[in-house]
Amino acid sequence: MTMALEQAEAAARRGEVPVGAVVVCGEDVLAARGNETRQAADPTAHAELLAIREAAARLGSERLTGCDLYVTLEPCPMCAGAISHARLARLYFGAEDPKGGGVLNGPRVFSSPTCLHRPEVYPEIGASAASELLRGFFQQLR
Amino acid sequence: MTMALEQAEAAARRGEVPVGAVVVCGEDVLAARGNETRQAADPTAHAELLAIREAAARLGSERLTGCDLYVTLEPCPMCAGAISHARLARLYFGAEDPKGGGVLNGPRVFSSPTCLHRPEVYPEIGASAASELLRGFFQQLR
Repeated sequence: MTMALEQAEAAARRGEVPVGAVVVCGEDVLAARGNETRQAADPTAHAELLAIREAAARLGSERLTGCDLYVTLEPCPMCAGAISHARLARLYFGAEDPKGGGVLNGPRVFSSPTCLHRPEVYPEIGASAASELLRGFFQQLR
Repeated sequence: MTMALEQAEAAARRGEVPVGAVVVCGEDVLAARGNETRQAADPTAHAELLAIREAAARLGSERLTGCDLYVTLEPCPMCAGAISHARLARLYFGAEDPKGGGVLNGPRVFSSPTCLHRPEVYPEIGASAASELLRGFFQQLR
């Protein structure tokens, strides 16, 4: 989660919403990415999606079976869907996101009876540091 | 929708689940893509996500405000989330997907009170041709 927070800090320095994500498989870090939606002009360039795509490319497989995702903020419905498609085993996330989250909040993607793959979910991991970063970023914008 | 069906047929010829998507803005077709998850070894490479990313890159904007998406199958939760992030105005889709869909089925992403942007949704546009393609594809696999 420390690496994910570093990615979030780097995103903030680029003027992006500070969210970072890391895909880990056993001892190996397969991908560590920060949010890039503005810079890349890509509405799908959330940290989670970028990290999942990079990890899948590295493994040459569309499935990340047995791998884990660490992300500083509760994933949105788009990213929750991607986590399920990628068959990630465990999801560790920092701050809960009552407005934009899709795991414990909103459409609660993994709780749908039609969800084909649910990771184990561990919320509130390093949540205070992640929240602090987001709060600081949005305060600066005002 | 004819173009989306052509993309779905091309996907089937590549051994991919036959789904196609087109982003249109006024008279302009900004992107037309088919499913590429196997070929690209990318769990996020659904037709909708690829078309949205390509259209956003063409406009140099993370928002596709006023643009429409045509897709041959009901979008999954991941793609529904991306449609919302991209601020697409209208979603036209072919066959309903009771197993994997995230619009009329499953977590019904746009129906969540926290969903920030909901497109107008027009289901069952060219549904029989889209279903036929999918049925043929999965029958061949058995």
